[in-house]
Amino acid sequence: MADGLNMSRRIRRTPYTDKIEHVGVRGFSVVNHMLLPKAFQPSIEDDYWHLREHVQLWDVSCQRQVQIEGPDAAKLVQMMTPRHIGKAIIGDCFYIPIIDANAGLINDPVMLKLAEDKFWLSIADSDVLLYALGLALGREMDVQVSEPDVSPLAVQGPKAEGLLASLFGEHIRDIGFFKYDWIEFQGTRQLIARSGYSRQGGFEIYLEGGHLGADLWDHIWEAGQPLNMTPGCPNLIERIEGGLFSYGNEMTRENNPLEIGLDNFCSLDGSVDYIGRVALEKIAADGVTRKIRGIIFDGEPCPTCSLPWPVMIGKRQVGQITSGVWSPRLMSNIGQSMIDREFWNIGQDVTVITPDGQNRSGKISRLPMA
Amino acid sequence: MADGLNMSRRIRRTPYTDKIEHVGVRGFSVVNHMLLPKAFQPSIEDDYWHLREHVQLWDVSCQRQVQIEGPDAAKLVQMMTPRHIGKAIIGDCFYIPIIDANAGLINDPVMLKLAEDKFWLSIADSDVLLYALGLALGREMDVQVSEPDVSPLAVQGPKAEGLLASLFGEHIRDIGFFKYDWIEFQGTRQLIARSGYSRQGGFEIYLEGGHLGADLWDHIWEAGQPLNMTPGCPNLIERIEGGLFSYGNEMTRENNPLEIGLDNFCSLDGSVDYIGRVALEKIAADGVTRKIRGIIFDGEPCPTCSLPWPVMIGKRQVGQITSGVWSPRLMSNIGQSMIDREFWNIGQDVTVITPDGQNRSGKISRLPMA
Repeated sequence: MADGLNMSRRIRRTPYTDKIEHVGVRGFSVVNHMLLPKAFQPSIEDDYWHLREHVQLWDVSCQRQVQIEGPDAAKLVQMMTPRHIGKAIIGDCFYIPIIDANAGLINDPVMLKLAEDKFWLSIADSDVLLYALGLALGREMDVQVSEPDVSPLAVQGPKAEGLLASLFGEHIRDIGFFKYDWIEFQGTRQLIARSGYSRQGGFEIYLEGGHLGADLWDHIWEAGQPLNMTPGCPNLIERIEGGLFSYGNEMTRENNPLEIGLDNFCSLDGSVDYIGRVALEKIAADGVTRKIRGIIFDGEPCPTCSLPWPVMIGKRQVGQITSGVWSPRLMSNIGQSMIDREFWNIGQDVTVITPDGQNRSGKISRLPMA
Repeated sequence: MADGLNMSRRIRRTPYTDKIEHVGVRGFSVVNHMLLPKAFQPSIEDDYWHLREHVQLWDVSCQRQVQIEGPDAAKLVQMMTPRHIGKAIIGDCFYIPIIDANAGLINDPVMLKLAEDKFWLSIADSDVLLYALGLALGREMDVQVSEPDVSPLAVQGPKAEGLLASLFGEHIRDIGFFKYDWIEFQGTRQLIARSGYSRQGGFEIYLEGGHLGADLWDHIWEAGQPLNMTPGCPNLIERIEGGLFSYGNEMTRENNPLEIGLDNFCSLDGSVDYIGRVALEKIAADGVTRKIRGIIFDGEPCPTCSLPWPVMIGKRQVGQITSGVWSPRLMSNIGQSMIDREFWNIGQDVTVITPDGQNRSGKISRLPMA
């Protein structure tokens, strides 16, 4: 479903928006006060099959960087996340949940450690910059908090590595998952990470200097044509199947990281201190009362999920689907939902109530889905 | 210009969205992770004339409230703004710029003083909640920072007062500009303020309890029909003419409140302390180097301003238009722009370069425009 989006300066264009329009974007979302292209191919299903087989170029500039630099930088970042960031070395990309004093999720960025005293947080859709700024000012910390002129461009899909190696050097093949290295482009040094919001492999180039955006797009786009490259965007089918979550959809401040299954990203042994530690340790000790799960459910292709859909067992609501879509591979509807503890076992029968008034039979599934 | 907006839970619907869709909304913007209806009438010009003569019902739920409550509430709010909030009494709505340590604008909310230890900040488009939370946690203040279930509904236009007095009581006629009082609706007490994002007069009802939204909409909508009520939204023509600014468009963290002409909302005599005081006092002492102005310029109706348009004198750029539109009343294009000090006199000739490639002759004007 798409309605008109009214444009203004407040909803920022990216260094690639002209190019995106040129290749026929059909719709946008808005993330971090910036345009995120959301529809290109004839359908989301075509886009899904293409992403699994070929290579796509994604404008993910809306993954804005919050730069935290200075003597207290590491201290400030550690205050914000339960993950032990002291374990990161330069060259690491760490997925770090950010939580409040009640362990409610504020964001779930990727942290890039650039130096012992310099970090980027590549954020989902909330103003982490203002949170970090408030903490720094409140505690009078010696750090600079800023948004640098950095606009990530993602190259996703199984053919991404070969393409980028041919353009920027064979050394990028050696970059590990959630690690970064550097490439040269027009005399500038640019960061490239093996990461991205899909399960099909690929890289993200954190382009520093928006004036280089059009040239970088063209450079990759032209080289990608023999590989059947298309413009793309995070694909809802692929991310639901793949168990990738979206801040604001699957998780809000109402949720804690353990409900999202982020246990491996939470230090719970007291070895580091952070905001929300006491609350999170108590939740861990008590056990969570709900957890994120997949749901596979019947009926014709479901509509867009813009309000959560109740997941029922008899007359009891046991969860709510926050993202749902038809999967042409599983030939069924799929969704992600928090599910109450007593009912979260894989294979549990449930009923999903979609806004078209249908009651659809479904089953709890694991994530990622088969 | 409108492109497709892809919906998801992350871009939140409001208690009135069903109603808005029922009356034929044609487009949205996104503010504070929430839908703001932006197009109803056959054209923005029809909407403009209607607003000046009749009465409109606006879903401005995206003006989210940041509730700050507790023993340190007043102290926290004062940290955030250069305005002396000690002068506010219960029942006041105070327009308060929020600034960072460099005096850069973070937001420009309306503060409602609900009690000596309880405030709502009715915000523009940035996550003030996270900033307030960061400050409170950083300084270990005794406050609760939250987003209550409050969704403002605006009734704007010259017929608003009569309509609302007939529905909710004659006492609302006594509410002063930027003051609030209370009305009863379905057994609940609801806050009503004489305020709104137009210069045509009117009120905003800060509905607490989203489940009452549809009924409140219907109640006002039905009573408004004999008065030629229409659904509406902040009107770009009216707000540019009226000198109302938009955070993210006319002002960002690159701007300070004195450039925006908010001198009257800034304590500069040292009588109160706040973040950014030293920087702001220095700017005041030095004098600002640019200031917001109106521009009236020639040519056919200008396109949508989604990237700032250069304002030139000869080969020198002296400003940039951040919002522009055709005014059917002034029979000219109008815009708002920061203008460098040497050139900001009313009547100064300038050239505006619009993205259709045209160079348009224009003149600096005062705000509000005649």
